[in-house]
Amino acid sequence: MTYHTTLDGAVAAAAAAAGPYGSWSAARRRDLLHACADALEAARAELVDLARTETALTAERLDGEVTRTTGQLRLYGDHVAAGRHLSGRTSPGAAPGGADVWTVDVPLGPVAVFAASNFPFAFGVPGGDTASALAAGCPVVVKGHPAQPRLSRRIAEVLAGAVAGADAPDGTFGFLDAESAGGDPARLGIELVRHPAIKAVGFTGSFGGGRALMDAAAARPEPIPVYAEMGSVNPVFVLPDAIADEAGREKWATALAAAVTGSGGQLCTKPGVVFVPETDDGEALADLTMFRIADTAPIPMLTEGMAAAHRTWSAKTAEAGAPARGESAVPDGTEPDARAGYPFAVQITAKDFEGDYREEHFGPAAVLVRADPADYPALADSLEGQLTATVIADDASAADRAAARALLPSLVAKAGRVVWNGVPTGVAVVEAMQHGGPWPATSAGWSTSVGTEAIRRFTRPVALQGVPADLVG
Amino acid sequence: MTYHTTLDGAVAAAAAAAGPYGSWSAARRRDLLHACADALEAARAELVDLARTETALTAERLDGEVTRTTGQLRLYGDHVAAGRHLSGRTSPGAAPGGADVWTVDVPLGPVAVFAASNFPFAFGVPGGDTASALAAGCPVVVKGHPAQPRLSRRIAEVLAGAVAGADAPDGTFGFLDAESAGGDPARLGIELVRHPAIKAVGFTGSFGGGRALMDAAAARPEPIPVYAEMGSVNPVFVLPDAIADEAGREKWATALAAAVTGSGGQLCTKPGVVFVPETDDGEALADLTMFRIADTAPIPMLTEGMAAAHRTWSAKTAEAGAPARGESAVPDGTEPDARAGYPFAVQITAKDFEGDYREEHFGPAAVLVRADPADYPALADSLEGQLTATVIADDASAADRAAARALLPSLVAKAGRVVWNGVPTGVAVVEAMQHGGPWPATSAGWSTSVGTEAIRRFTRPVALQGVPADLVG
Repeated sequence: MTYHTTLDGAVAAAAAAAGPYGSWSAARRRDLLHACADALEAARAELVDLARTETALTAERLDGEVTRTTGQLRLYGDHVAAGRHLSGRTSPGAAPGGADVWTVDVPLGPVAVFAASNFPFAFGVPGGDTASALAAGCPVVVKGHPAQPRLSRRIAEVLAGAVAGADAPDGTFGFLDAESAGGDPARLGIELVRHPAIKAVGFTGSFGGGRALMDAAAARPEPIPVYAEMGSVNPVFVLPDAIADEAGREKWATALAAAVTGSGGQLCTKPGVVFVPETDDGEALADLTMFRIADTAPIPMLTEGMAAAHRTWSAKTAEAGAPARGESAVPDGTEPDARAGYPFAVQITAKDFEGDYREEHFGPAAVLVRADPADYPALADSLEGQLTATVIADDASAADRAAARALLPSLVAKAGRVVWNGVPTGVAVVEAMQHGGPWPATSAGWSTSVGTEAIRRFTRPVALQGVPADLVG
Repeated sequence: MTYHTTLDGAVAAAAAAAGPYGSWSAARRRDLLHACADALEAARAELVDLARTETALTAERLDGEVTRTTGQLRLYGDHVAAGRHLSGRTSPGAAPGGADVWTVDVPLGPVAVFAASNFPFAFGVPGGDTASALAAGCPVVVKGHPAQPRLSRRIAEVLAGAVAGADAPDGTFGFLDAESAGGDPARLGIELVRHPAIKAVGFTGSFGGGRALMDAAAARPEPIPVYAEMGSVNPVFVLPDAIADEAGREKWATALAAAVTGSGGQLCTKPGVVFVPETDDGEALADLTMFRIADTAPIPMLTEGMAAAHRTWSAKTAEAGAPARGESAVPDGTEPDARAGYPFAVQITAKDFEGDYREEHFGPAAVLVRADPADYPALADSLEGQLTATVIADDASAADRAAARALLPSLVAKAGRVVWNGVPTGVAVVEAMQHGGPWPATSAGWSTSVGTEAIRRFTRPVALQGVPADLVG
């Protein structure tokens, strides 16, 4: 099976498909999403193998991600088939003359999807943006990530086959990659967003990339919404009584180190900044966490460019004079592996928490900040918008609960999700999930790119006033 | 009672109020909104009188609008107190480790509100944007419309008094007008939108004004959402059997003429374009509608500038060679009253439906387009995005129902609200109302500026994961 491979071809086909596909029943859309899931499932082994080669992520992680991705496609299909995505507002007899007013929901039209590199399946070509747009009744034109050309194309073939097999209009699923644009992926992305037939954009990636697409979308004759998820440092606030004994310190040092280094620290919800109390217990936790991080073997990163950026950041941070105890970074006297991410952590005090330490950093690294827990609310207030914020506390401690009560309003004001006694890296694909957050974490903090609510980004409600029900829908 | 009168003063106070006011319970916000309604009610006679002087609208219309506005304030207060604005998503046990995930909703922060001139109350200083932002927990900074300086200031005093009387933080309600900016309202507006403490914008007005604010908001270091309602021509499609007898023609000619000329045709939902069948019946309806429009006495418009623009448009349209039967415009040989809107209508055929005829026109005027009803779907498809679209049909006619069934998908795709056998000018302030629609009718077609759903524009959901319930909210 195939798909259109030029920008104009893919978008024109998507525009032509928008009407017919947009009028499909929710049950048919569910069947299409299930068919996509089935097709990915059938190609699982081949795709995981390709992904392993191109991403350097482990087969185990990639296999789990395929499961998440097929589950997501099926869930979104089931969600719309059950009508759970509908705004469903009704005001009987409310219009002048006593007519009923109620809402129906219509798809926005062709959606441009920008696949991320760090989740080649769950946020990649067949990921959440593709699934939610198709569930909403919108054709998609997906731009594959240039770091995964073979995997992206193969997934596109699999999806194109499933979409055609479900008798969807030609153009319901489109795919483009750098080859279509003479090798310049950034230009291809901007041109895609500028195309007048595109009506919305889903993006997961860097701040610079997201902002460029937002600017292009806002400057169009017809501005369109860009749902961009651009990441954050995902602060963690450790309260004293949670780490008052060795068991607590051991538990949280291990959990935090695993969250910092898992998948090479290349998750948008990686806890990049951990605030610990400036006490002996806090220092012990920080040291143990750094040790656990440093004790992790180097991890191949998604690209050599990312690995190089990580090494540069680590070296700069270490040189800045921060007491970087525990960093392994590049072992002395060895030539770094070009693709390896060397686990790394630094400890600083709250007064030095400025500049680079506040920026998102992709890779197996974290900044541990020793602070007075009484200052946690002010530190939280000083942060930019975040995807997540986490509190680690002793549930049974009145002191920790009082401190949390004082801190939580600041976290709720700054983040899209607040985690209690956990790590932020597991993002459940469920109805209540909010994977969003204030600027600059995302472009539209009132939306989510994970969970069934993501579907609603690509529809709009229409009020019907007195229209005979048998004439619509 | 008073309010801050400089931009920096008003916005700084709003920023300082955002935290404390944002943490108010919904019940307290309800009480504040009711207090605002009570205060407007107490000043009703004085305000209607002032409004009559500055807007030239009738006392009866203005009195009704005060009732709508106070009802709106009370409704939005009751809505949040009942928790009906909450996203309320719950996923029990869904997070890793079995923690519950559920959403709470937080206000975005200070909202800039741009008052419209055509509804000095319902879309003015105390209007829907102000009411929905305050209901959401956001302080507001309202820019008064320059055409109504005295009324705007007096309403601001009344609201500032009510807000202070409810013990709301200083800065919860702010007001600015052209005087604050050395007489340049456009510059004041742009500066307000650019102010870093402003987090969202509500606007009702012209396309040019809305687009300028959108561009300013999108170019900020932190882009913010602009909810701009910029109007449309609100097409009406008349099907043959609805006007097959004289009673039907009489009924709809009268209703349409009243909707075209009511409030001087200065409503964003005025039916500006009416498609009639190119049959003897259709022509009879068009003639009768034009006669009814022309038979209406000239209506003082909101400003002399609007009246002049209306005269220019009418003259240009008449000169364009359209068979402008029925226009009264300015009677021959008379000097026009500078503020009068002379009712006017033109008839054209579908092939001439281009250019100016497709543009929104403020004033008591309409374009009647004779067309083959079989072409209605294609004509609808050719339109820009609309706030409303209307079908006039004989409910009992199988032919009309079949034609409507073919037409409705195009209308649903183009409009925010579809009206059946009515006129679009009555916008009910209810839960199911959708006063929005695709670009260029609004900047964000998935939102509404009328009805309780308007509140949600100014909040965002936050997912809580395992957080002890007693520590939040």
